[in-house]
Amino acid sequence: MRQSFDETTDPSFGAKHLPLVRARMAEQGLDGLLVPHEDEYQNEYLPDANERLAWVSGFTGSAGAGVVLKDRAAVFTDGRYTVQINAQVDAGQFEILDIVDPGVPAWLESVPAGSVIGYDARLHSPDALSALRRAVEKAGATLKAVSPNPLDLAWGDARPPQPTAPVVPHPVRYAGEEASAKRVRIGKAVSALGGDAVLLTAPASLAWLFNIRGGDVIRTPLPLGQAILNADGSAKLFLDPVKVTNELPGWLGDAVELASPEQIDAAIAALSGKAVVVDPAQSAAVWFDALEAAGARVIRAMDPCALPRASKNTVEIEGSRQAHIRDGAALTRFLHWVEATAGKSLPDEREIAETLERFRDATGELKDLSFDTIAGAGPNGALPHYKPVGAKIRRIETGSLLLVDGGGQYLDGTTDVTRTMAVGEATADQRRKFTLVLKAHIAMAVVRFPAGTSGHQLDAVCRAPMWAAGLDYDHGTGHGVGSYLGVHEGPARIAKAVNSQPLLTGMILSNEPGYYREGDWGIRIETLQVVTAPAPIPGGERPMHGFEQLTFAPHDRRLIDVDMLTADERAYVDAYHAETLAKVGPLLAGGVQADAAALEWLKAACAPL
Amino acid sequence: MRQSFDETTDPSFGAKHLPLVRARMAEQGLDGLLVPHEDEYQNEYLPDANERLAWVSGFTGSAGAGVVLKDRAAVFTDGRYTVQINAQVDAGQFEILDIVDPGVPAWLESVPAGSVIGYDARLHSPDALSALRRAVEKAGATLKAVSPNPLDLAWGDARPPQPTAPVVPHPVRYAGEEASAKRVRIGKAVSALGGDAVLLTAPASLAWLFNIRGGDVIRTPLPLGQAILNADGSAKLFLDPVKVTNELPGWLGDAVELASPEQIDAAIAALSGKAVVVDPAQSAAVWFDALEAAGARVIRAMDPCALPRASKNTVEIEGSRQAHIRDGAALTRFLHWVEATAGKSLPDEREIAETLERFRDATGELKDLSFDTIAGAGPNGALPHYKPVGAKIRRIETGSLLLVDGGGQYLDGTTDVTRTMAVGEATADQRRKFTLVLKAHIAMAVVRFPAGTSGHQLDAVCRAPMWAAGLDYDHGTGHGVGSYLGVHEGPARIAKAVNSQPLLTGMILSNEPGYYREGDWGIRIETLQVVTAPAPIPGGERPMHGFEQLTFAPHDRRLIDVDMLTADERAYVDAYHAETLAKVGPLLAGGVQADAAALEWLKAACAPL
Repeated sequence: MRQSFDETTDPSFGAKHLPLVRARMAEQGLDGLLVPHEDEYQNEYLPDANERLAWVSGFTGSAGAGVVLKDRAAVFTDGRYTVQINAQVDAGQFEILDIVDPGVPAWLESVPAGSVIGYDARLHSPDALSALRRAVEKAGATLKAVSPNPLDLAWGDARPPQPTAPVVPHPVRYAGEEASAKRVRIGKAVSALGGDAVLLTAPASLAWLFNIRGGDVIRTPLPLGQAILNADGSAKLFLDPVKVTNELPGWLGDAVELASPEQIDAAIAALSGKAVVVDPAQSAAVWFDALEAAGARVIRAMDPCALPRASKNTVEIEGSRQAHIRDGAALTRFLHWVEATAGKSLPDEREIAETLERFRDATGELKDLSFDTIAGAGPNGALPHYKPVGAKIRRIETGSLLLVDGGGQYLDGTTDVTRTMAVGEATADQRRKFTLVLKAHIAMAVVRFPAGTSGHQLDAVCRAPMWAAGLDYDHGTGHGVGSYLGVHEGPARIAKAVNSQPLLTGMILSNEPGYYREGDWGIRIETLQVVTAPAPIPGGERPMHGFEQLTFAPHDRRLIDVDMLTADERAYVDAYHAETLAKVGPLLAGGVQADAAALEWLKAACAPL
Repeated sequence: MRQSFDETTDPSFGAKHLPLVRARMAEQGLDGLLVPHEDEYQNEYLPDANERLAWVSGFTGSAGAGVVLKDRAAVFTDGRYTVQINAQVDAGQFEILDIVDPGVPAWLESVPAGSVIGYDARLHSPDALSALRRAVEKAGATLKAVSPNPLDLAWGDARPPQPTAPVVPHPVRYAGEEASAKRVRIGKAVSALGGDAVLLTAPASLAWLFNIRGGDVIRTPLPLGQAILNADGSAKLFLDPVKVTNELPGWLGDAVELASPEQIDAAIAALSGKAVVVDPAQSAAVWFDALEAAGARVIRAMDPCALPRASKNTVEIEGSRQAHIRDGAALTRFLHWVEATAGKSLPDEREIAETLERFRDATGELKDLSFDTIAGAGPNGALPHYKPVGAKIRRIETGSLLLVDGGGQYLDGTTDVTRTMAVGEATADQRRKFTLVLKAHIAMAVVRFPAGTSGHQLDAVCRAPMWAAGLDYDHGTGHGVGSYLGVHEGPARIAKAVNSQPLLTGMILSNEPGYYREGDWGIRIETLQVVTAPAPIPGGERPMHGFEQLTFAPHDRRLIDVDMLTADERAYVDAYHAETLAKVGPLLAGGVQADAAALEWLKAACAPL
């Protein structure tokens, strides 16, 4: 089993660790210290060694921030994690606040004038830092870069070691483009920005650019490191030598020099007088400081690998289709198992997540889960980012709902799918709410849109059917997904918040509206879909993008109130189910995923409504 | 007749006026001069004296900009005015470019290094100026404030005088709130921003705050001037003394001191050491310069009158309802007239606009048009901002469409409505396109949305039915509308472009999707609607805003393909028509707008589809 169901932190962390941090702060003359969730690589999911916020506060969510002052402290996260943070953090030690309202900057405006607030320049992007700096200065206090990080000193020997997973080639039959070709075209993009080189600090950009994968971060095959790519396509790749496999130098080729992390300071010093592209939203402030100190001219621009990585090529898209059909067969076997089992006994969430993992493993191609499976029985399903651990684990209950959100990392693609199931007979209210979420989901699945449209424009198209019923959900509608990379991948996103990156052909995004009845149950319907090229529409004049569905697994027909669907919506569900049977069925009929009972079940599940 | 149908400019302006401007530029040592469309008041519609861009280039659209260099010049506008600008401007004198792509800044990046580009600090907001400055500096050139404006010197005696329309009270029975109460609450808002005073430079803010109206700008009852409001609610109002009517001082009350425009310099000097709120998006750079020179501390914040003005109170909303019903009766008489006349003879656009104005005038309450009526016959209807002047005026043609967009200024409200009519038998294609636009229009009319939603989020909800058919329109979906004030009023807007101002209860916005078949005909359907307070929805959990329709006039049923409508859409049209008959019918049955034939026609027009 990859997934662990043990609680890794507890609320005593604050009382135990805050005094240690404050003692180290005092040694450095600090009145405060910023503790972002992000690490040296601006990762969302962190290696254990970089879980600084979790260590000091107990909070393990994937988005958050903390501030430690001499006599008080605060920890912030977003609406997805409200319940979790209150369970994990000792409110006697930390004020527990929302990261949007009030947000960290507003809270910092109330620090005492004259305070000196420390920050670790390796952990903040300049963009993130500038808002924090304005707030601190508004309070009449100062923000000061500190090294070493007092928290790291306080953590000391108890801190786990940095990860050292081997870095391996990612074959072109999955990547779809030779790394040498990628280096040349990204080099040209750097030239076009007026740069002589680009400093790449996002592990996902290293993975994409050099066609390599690692294993330094849980659930994501990232190689932690940095690279400097020159405009001519040659590069230096900085990796811990212990991670360098024998085959790697040959795979990278002569134009890529491998170097150890200690050598990056000298390499940056050698950029004196050069124009160097760095991404102010993704790269830590420490790199800007180092380049400026070295006499390089910094060009602030989006990481030039970000859009090519997000816009999957045809090989990556075909890989994703195959990964999703394989994953859909595993999910179908699981859905059949849940329904068959629930008639006899009521498994708990751990058993549910383990069973789903077993079916994914049975594909023979699972490299990892793409994130820890969210199996939410009843009230736990009403927590959008619930994770079954420790004493929270519940058994499913007849008359309630089960929400399961999980995905797999396969060499040919990353999956992420949510299905919601009735346990026993569904109530009229459950059917009504599920059908409203389904209408929202369909609205996004079928939407067409012109080039230049971005996610914040489409978000309301999905929500409108729910808004009309007086309902909404407090999370985004869709996130980008990598190709055997992060299950959350920028820069595009579909959400209420402004994100001006247009959706481009080949971007893979989730479509996941939901409804959550606190204390009772939750509903979410999620598929991944890929942006199709602008295409003419009969009777129309302008070519329009659209979405091709990648995820194929049936929706629980017991939860669909057919009378609430328009004719078009009903036709959509029937066509989607027919396609699911046509694509997933053959894998259940023979081969490693053969499962005759599941196939019979799928045929019934995919019959017209 | 208020509306004139004469061409006021011609393409010879460039050849005649550019040399005059360049001679004055040379005297001041300038290599270039910025010529924004905006004037000293950041007006959209200008008094003749401030039509600088029209004078130098010939272009009279309501949005644009120009740049005059020694040896070349450029003029920019948006997609609404592409056809107009090409007809009005001599392409031998000016490059004619899009204001978004490339936009003025990108063009300025190509001016020769070392150039000195002049600007008139009275005509640019700091926000607008900063983008221009960055571009000029990127080119290695400098931007220099100049006074007097070389263009004004070149225009000389030929320039019309500044307007001097009397400023009159706007009674509380229309405004809904005493000016004294407004001054106190805006004063408190200034305090809350940390300010001692606010400098108000938007004429609409003067009009709203002091409950006054003027007539300095065509089609909009604006009093040009400035004001300084202190945190205690007392104020100084700067108006040309010739505009001050006898009743005005008493109306303004003792807490408001009237002063002449020349006295504002001394008043600003007296703000030394004070904290003064000014809007960097709405107030010209010259005010920031003056306040900083005076030793005041400038607080950059949105004009504190902007949101209270945009969020109409219940008296203003009720006034708007009445104005719209009255205007709807005028429009109904007009629509009946078009249909009756077209069977016998084919009027031209001038006759059409004049007839509509006569019906509006017959209400006995019309103070002005809210903008020059757009009457677009056939191909002219395909120009979203067409205005019938001179030789462009066409006769309507059987088998084509007529698009009429107009509005009235009444003391109780400002109207703006577009209807599209078939002339004779409609083709299947006309019916299909009209019905698609109608579906988009209905989607926006019925949308519900949570507090905090802004216009760029809702825009795609309107466009989605057209996008699905491969169609789109190159203008916004909705603009704010004032209460007996500007027919275009910020800060909210419904469009593709990001506008993060949430839609607030009481804001009046247009809903006007369209379709334009260049060279043939155009379709637009526009009503005004007011944002309703968040209200619970049966079966829902979160209160939702919505829109209440203000405009009532029938849609041309000959253009509706009922088979393309969903049951809900058809029910919407029937309910809207029933409400139109119930509200507008009584005004046609008796009183100054009595028109028995139009009433009979309306009954038929409003029958269920």
